Amino acid sequence: MDRSDITAALVIIGDEILSGRTQDANLAYLAKWLNEAGIQLHEVRVVQDIEDEIVAAVNPLRARYDYVFTTGGIGPTHDDITVDSVAAAFGVPVVVHPEAYRRMLEYYGEENFTEARKRMTRVPEGAELIDNPVSIAPGIRIENVFIMAGVPKIMQSMLEAIRGELKTGRKVWTQALTVHAPESKIAEGLGDIQAANPETSIGSYPFYHTGTPGAQIVIRSAAPEAIDTAMGAVMNMCDAAGFDTDHPTELQ
Amino acid sequence: MDRSDITAALVIIGDEILSGRTQDANLAYLAKWLNEAGIQLHEVRVVQDIEDEIVAAVNPLRARYDYVFTTGGIGPTHDDITVDSVAAAFGVPVVVHPEAYRRMLEYYGEENFTEARKRMTRVPEGAELIDNPVSIAPGIRIENVFIMAGVPKIMQSMLEAIRGELKTGRKVWTQALTVHAPESKIAEGLGDIQAANPETSIGSYPFYHTGTPGAQIVIRSAAPEAIDTAMGAVMNMCDAAGFDTDHPTELQ
Repeated sequence: MDRSDITAALVIIGDEILSGRTQDANLAYLAKWLNEAGIQLHEVRVVQDIEDEIVAAVNPLRARYDYVFTTGGIGPTHDDITVDSVAAAFGVPVVVHPEAYRRMLEYYGEENFTEARKRMTRVPEGAELIDNPVSIAPGIRIENVFIMAGVPKIMQSMLEAIRGELKTGRKVWTQALTVHAPESKIAEGLGDIQAANPETSIGSYPFYHTGTPGAQIVIRSAAPEAIDTAMGAVMNMCDAAGFDTDHPTELQ
Repeated sequence: MDRSDITAALVIIGDEILSGRTQDANLAYLAKWLNEAGIQLHEVRVVQDIEDEIVAAVNPLRARYDYVFTTGGIGPTHDDITVDSVAAAFGVPVVVHPEAYRRMLEYYGEENFTEARKRMTRVPEGAELIDNPVSIAPGIRIENVFIMAGVPKIMQSMLEAIRGELKTGRKVWTQALTVHAPESKIAEGLGDIQAANPETSIGSYPFYHTGTPGAQIVIRSAAPEAIDTAMGAVMNMCDAAGFDTDHPTELQ
């Protein structure tokens, strides 16, 4: 790993995802948001809503990556165990955060500030709050771990709230090219181009959805000019072999 | 974990997913397919296309769960490293599988059986093939690890090919109820119902997409009658509190 890479992992608190009923919508959003901010998402784990499982995921990941995000399990119901689980991972007690309490009390008023809502003012001791402009109940930061909501709209607003707090490294740029030929026919040339362009990472993702096989060639690098060189080589190879290609995507 | 539970994990070979460019489509399909077959998906990891990362995911998971599935990285290009990585995880060499070679040669013919295509006949030593009726190049089983394609249509056809080979346990049934009230207003009652119905697992998933807050209450159990009891209690609670609910979903 390059020294200038800042890395992150995501832990999805995940019974609902693991059942297949709900399709996760946070991974792709977080991955793109982090990359735009100069942070690379390097690992994701989806774990059961069980404290030991969450601890077993959070602890190795927070030791290894610059940042760990969790999504889900911070609401008012009995199955919302992320705060307790992350506290257990850090070996600290769970306490009521006075500022979270103040915000929730102000928003709901005394009469509607139920025990269930008070649950959402609990944090691992020593944690800071992450603003939630959508529904008030805050996210939580403890050291390099960010406890985020599972509801995409709220998760996304919490990300905006921490934008300035994250150290950032290189952004990885991406450009993709659709080739209308079987992957196996470009494999050898593509391998040569990868070998000749070590600053890039070249992926090939086959598809069949158009009836004839093809592949998306995806070139990634922190150096846009390196992508340009490698993309030129891929397009020349396809031209020389008589394979149709679409226009490359914009560099992103 | 109940003794009658058969469990599985999924390792997504995942640069393209971790970049956020592509939304994984295999997790939800696999989760539902496995549950229908009486196997519970308990953990998912998305890892980089790096051999050490794949080994570090596969080895603890295959020790812990009955089955491990991998998706992605078994094509003909330089970035397809799953076979080599799983072989490394098992500490065995990679060899050409004669039957895979025979099938691919028959399908492509001598003149089109390129080096790249020959790559797709390589397996960890001791592995068996998984039929691929879509595009011939087989999946691979070694002990309790199933190396599957990343292309959803092919992954799905490989699942059908192994249907008879898997030992199966309990199916977990699910029924869901949409409640049109803030989660925090049903939290306490829901916790009581969970406590009174230990054979079920009750999840609450808030939503805001209709403008007013609501929650999906999802009740899971291997015992349909236990779901029925708990669902009755949730509906009674909502009725008593004057909260609108939709009809419960079918038991699935």
